[in-house]
Amino acid sequence: MRHTHLMCAAVRNEAENDAGVTALRLTAVLTAFGPGDGPLGVSELARRTGIAKSSVHRLIGHLVGNGLLERDGTSVRLGLKLFEIGQLAIRQRGLVDAARPHLADLREATRNTVHLAVLEGAEVVYLDILRGPDAPRLPSRIGGRFPAHATAVGKAILAFSEQSEVDGVIAGGLARVSTRTITAPGLLKRQLTKIRAEGIAYEREESGTGVVCAASPVLGGDGKPVAALSISGWVNRVRTERVGPAVRTAALALSRALT
Amino acid sequence: MRHTHLMCAAVRNEAENDAGVTALRLTAVLTAFGPGDGPLGVSELARRTGIAKSSVHRLIGHLVGNGLLERDGTSVRLGLKLFEIGQLAIRQRGLVDAARPHLADLREATRNTVHLAVLEGAEVVYLDILRGPDAPRLPSRIGGRFPAHATAVGKAILAFSEQSEVDGVIAGGLARVSTRTITAPGLLKRQLTKIRAEGIAYEREESGTGVVCAASPVLGGDGKPVAALSISGWVNRVRTERVGPAVRTAALALSRALT
Repeated sequence: MRHTHLMCAAVRNEAENDAGVTALRLTAVLTAFGPGDGPLGVSELARRTGIAKSSVHRLIGHLVGNGLLERDGTSVRLGLKLFEIGQLAIRQRGLVDAARPHLADLREATRNTVHLAVLEGAEVVYLDILRGPDAPRLPSRIGGRFPAHATAVGKAILAFSEQSEVDGVIAGGLARVSTRTITAPGLLKRQLTKIRAEGIAYEREESGTGVVCAASPVLGGDGKPVAALSISGWVNRVRTERVGPAVRTAALALSRALT
Repeated sequence: MRHTHLMCAAVRNEAENDAGVTALRLTAVLTAFGPGDGPLGVSELARRTGIAKSSVHRLIGHLVGNGLLERDGTSVRLGLKLFEIGQLAIRQRGLVDAARPHLADLREATRNTVHLAVLEGAEVVYLDILRGPDAPRLPSRIGGRFPAHATAVGKAILAFSEQSEVDGVIAGGLARVSTRTITAPGLLKRQLTKIRAEGIAYEREESGTGVVCAASPVLGGDGKPVAALSISGWVNRVRTERVGPAVRTAALALSRALT
């Protein structure tokens, strides 16, 4: 019987580990969906996650049962419940609600597109975007990501971040996003010093051709950057030096509102 | 040995079921957070989910590891990854992107607050809200829910839904949200018939005192309602009969854009 117990204990440990594996696999299925995707089938999800089809089939059953996925014919799509939970995730930060009137003012005053973004590792994540009537159609989307060093919002946040965070971004490599992206560490560091002194970050076609941007960091009570606001427009229609003070003013007002 | 195998098989089946239990528990932890919540501790999450503290502790470890939760001191909050996945969940529907310009037009034209909502069971879920300068501060929030029968958007969608869906809402009980909420099934049915004929739903202080609203359904190519648009404002400042045609026009344009 001792032998039996030992064996079953091993299986039980496996079950214990299984909880971690299941958690990992559930997340893998949920994060397998990309921006351009419609509903995905079992085979496609198995291919993307590297999980066996039979397991994907079972995981989908659980996720549909809990409302995190929804069936669409023989495929599945992300559930509305994920949208609801996701909204709570940013509400907990209080940031989006607090930023909304400031973003609206900026758009009203400049007629261009305004962004609210946070830094996640070496990328920025857009929490909110209000598109202006005079602005170009930008590739940014709410919930989307972009390399931090190639954007004004990213540079605005990095300029006020710990040196170790900046070093981490540089160590990860400054990928070229457009022909004007800053890819030299020394040049980026010099710009960040200037941005820190002025409180405004400028971006001139560094994220894409034809687009310029001015951004300013939103600082928490401890002086650490929590986000950045920006205004983006056509290079030949927006004078970033002129909209810079507007975005700085809005960022200062939002910083004050958060503390 | 046969005995051993049988016993271990039982434990193995348990492990198999455990995947379902884990999925259920992970969802329970993620949905334990409410609109007003900051970060929550292990004890509070255990209390809300009914899961043992030791299990909650382990689940949190998995969820933090996968980015679905984030640590905040000894507590946890919903992770930014959930926001990103949640945005994809509504992007898959294409609805929010398609509706944005129509919502912006409506707000511009009426200076009041505009909503985009879908029906989920007996409740509406707000997918997007643009607040107008002349509008009251409403309790609605993006990702939030409200009883369908007490809102213009809910009535607009129900008026074009299958009879079985309407019956389901009525069977669930028409809760009184404000003193003017329609709680009589017969009255609701008569209103829905009228709304179906006119294409516009009105709400007069049924969701809250002082607020009126006009809504119109967004119909898919199959004629089924996929959402509704609305305009809300102060009862003494907005003539719903006058903004009704505007919201109807926008809803028709959006319906056409989706098909």
